Amino acid sequence: MFKSIFTNISEKKPLVHSITNYVTVNDCANIILAAGGSPIMADDIREVEDITSICSALVINMGTLNERTIESMVLAGKKANANGSPVIFDPVGVGASTLRNETAFRLLNEVKFSVIRGNISEILFLAKGAGTTKGVDASEADKVTPDNIQSVIDFAKSLSKKTGAVIAISGAIDIVANAEKAYTVTNGHPIMAQITGSGCMLAALIGTFCAANSDTLLDATTAAVGSMGLCGELAQEKMSKNDGGTGMFRMYLIDYISKLDAEKFESGAKIAAK
Amino acid sequence: MFKSIFTNISEKKPLVHSITNYVTVNDCANIILAAGGSPIMADDIREVEDITSICSALVINMGTLNERTIESMVLAGKKANANGSPVIFDPVGVGASTLRNETAFRLLNEVKFSVIRGNISEILFLAKGAGTTKGVDASEADKVTPDNIQSVIDFAKSLSKKTGAVIAISGAIDIVANAEKAYTVTNGHPIMAQITGSGCMLAALIGTFCAANSDTLLDATTAAVGSMGLCGELAQEKMSKNDGGTGMFRMYLIDYISKLDAEKFESGAKIAAK
Amino acid sequence: MFKSIFTNISEKKPLVHSITNYVTVNDCANIILAAGGSPIMADDIREVEDITSICSALVINMGTLNERTIESMVLAGKKANANGSPVIFDPVGVGASTLRNETAFRLLNEVKFSVIRGNISEILFLAKGAGTTKGVDASEADKVTPDNIQSVIDFAKSLSKKTGAVIAISGAIDIVANAEKAYTVTNGHPIMAQITGSGCMLAALIGTFCAANSDTLLDATTAAVGSMGLCGELAQEKMSKNDGGTGMFRMYLIDYISKLDAEKFESGAKIAAK
Repeated sequence: MFKSIFTNISEKKPLVHSITNYVTVNDCANIILAAGGSPIMADDIREVEDITSICSALVINMGTLNERTIESMVLAGKKANANGSPVIFDPVGVGASTLRNETAFRLLNEVKFSVIRGNISEILFLAKGAGTTKGVDASEADKVTPDNIQSVIDFAKSLSKKTGAVIAISGAIDIVANAEKAYTVTNGHPIMAQITGSGCMLAALIGTFCAANSDTLLDATTAAVGSMGLCGELAQEKMSKNDGGTGMFRMYLIDYISKLDAEKFESGAKIAAK
Repeated sequence: MFKSIFTNISEKKPLVHSITNYVTVNDCANIILAAGGSPIMADDIREVEDITSICSALVINMGTLNERTIESMVLAGKKANANGSPVIFDPVGVGASTLRNETAFRLLNEVKFSVIRGNISEILFLAKGAGTTKGVDASEADKVTPDNIQSVIDFAKSLSKKTGAVIAISGAIDIVANAEKAYTVTNGHPIMAQITGSGCMLAALIGTFCAANSDTLLDATTAAVGSMGLCGELAQEKMSKNDGGTGMFRMYLIDYISKLDAEKFESGAKIAAK
Repeated sequence: MFKSIFTNISEKKPLVHSITNYVTVNDCANIILAAGGSPIMADDIREVEDITSICSALVINMGTLNERTIESMVLAGKKANANGSPVIFDPVGVGASTLRNETAFRLLNEVKFSVIRGNISEILFLAKGAGTTKGVDASEADKVTPDNIQSVIDFAKSLSKKTGAVIAISGAIDIVANAEKAYTVTNGHPIMAQITGSGCMLAALIGTFCAANSDTLLDATTAAVGSMGLCGELAQEKMSKNDGGTGMFRMYLIDYISKLDAEKFESGAKIAAK
């Protein structure tokens, strides 16, 4: 089912423009390359439109936003919209400061996103600003479990309907949904939270997968989420075998992404349509 | 003696706010996670007070300072002071430019630091601006040896008295002192100077240890210094065994921090009260 | 022939100032250290002259340029020129945006470069702005092959004559030339293009080699190019043996640079005078 998604990346080697944070930017560039894409990071307002225009997707990550880069995010997002390129939004840390909250809501208003990726707290916070009246409570729903999963799926579908974006919620059980359809992904390992950038790298990966598969955003996003989780499992196994720690885990994670293909993905991904 | 310091980190998983350089920021975030903390990097002046207020410690690192981030450092430092959170200062490269010197002295004047960490040259340079009249000569004291160690300890205690901060001087023999008491730490390996970020990562580690142990800053800082040195030794051994170089050394260093616990620390740390 | 170049680095441990991008800056700092130099990254306009003045070389990399850092590049470049220090230029992504093009041409006008390093497309683009009338066509010459190599060498010599800089063109066959003499380097492996920063790290390495060998810039640059290619080959072999991917490849690359010496270089480098 997902085979053509991988074939398209190999054939197109898509250019991906990222306006992202300086903490995990190197990992993001390396994982885009490992997945078969080509990264460009550029954030000066005088060039973001040029750069976005030669790329097949734009990833906006709020990690270390500042007054200069916020304006570049808005301008690049609008240009990508005009060009019809997928725009991925990773609202890192929304809820943690007024600046992040206002920026996230401004971006939601001014840019049409193709995919929004975050953890459940970030997505719940965004939902309030997006006008979703569902009233899902962050503290209650903070953990996605087999018991509450259906309500979280319904929430994701409803937010997708509101925003027009595929919604990807990262956690022990990942949820990827558009307005009509949802997938759960149960790959992954808790150690992924012990390195910085698991989420940022996933957003970069989603950007790469969507850049080469802009007509099947739900499946492309799901394949990216499954790839990250599967490679996290494989990296953890190798780390344990070699008596390693979180330093080596991060390198092995990128290793496995660079060696992943459709066949390995199909045999290891744990994806269920909901 | 240091056991409760590790227990407190495990139990509190403290949030640590860093305003730091873009060269080693990824290593700093990863080592905070490896040690059991949770990192947030944020430097826009409109959000640093919000971010500092949800964190248990603030680390200010001058590595790639600029006009925008300097103001954020001052504001965040004052807010952390008002909140009673520990503030760690790493005056990277002070002495190398007028901008760094003026910024370091300004920060010393406007922010009350809990811990100041640097190499002997950086700490000696700071001491001048802090009004220490001890007249310790940089060139003379640049190397801490068994012969001059007592005079460096006396200098560190005197600077601590003047600034109110725990003073941590990194070198072949590390010195950690407050006004009354000092420790030497003789862990570590010369290869640590052959990677970028050994010092920055130590400051991030001190931030994590102090965040969870704000009532015992001297011991928390000493435990962080000992952890870094011990894990540097272990990483160097593994690197040699695997015929590696400085690339692998850096990953093994983070590995060992992620696997360190109170027991391993107590059996490997070489700490002496002075 | 290249032995003294390595000896000079070991003896001088040169300080290298880089104004570079935040994507690969950590790798650049680590490879300068691995090669035996000492890195300083600083980009605030109020300190770049101070920092450049204590360093033995300046590396200007346009990777994530912005209005603030562009002015710092110009000012630092002029100061390094006044001091007689080598200045290395890596015009990352020139041709991709008007801002990059204008900045590259401005830098070429205002700063005298000692070495310019880029891939063939970047160098061809620069050549237009530098007033070379050779009319080498980018699409035609984009790939350096045994068939067109003599014309590319002639182009490089001509650009060197025009700019006064050693020209280093990275590719399957690397070319390093001044106005009179050229070398080809046939080390390297295609996997080097699957990590971010191969080019940036090479520019940092050239900076280190030239800092300690400012009177033999052509040979120093060639040795740096050969070192990078040779260590890329060795890293790829080790990666394959250990069933690794691009994550580990990057670490092994830095490993081998940290273990390289004149003897290993002489026995592995594939350099031909042309």
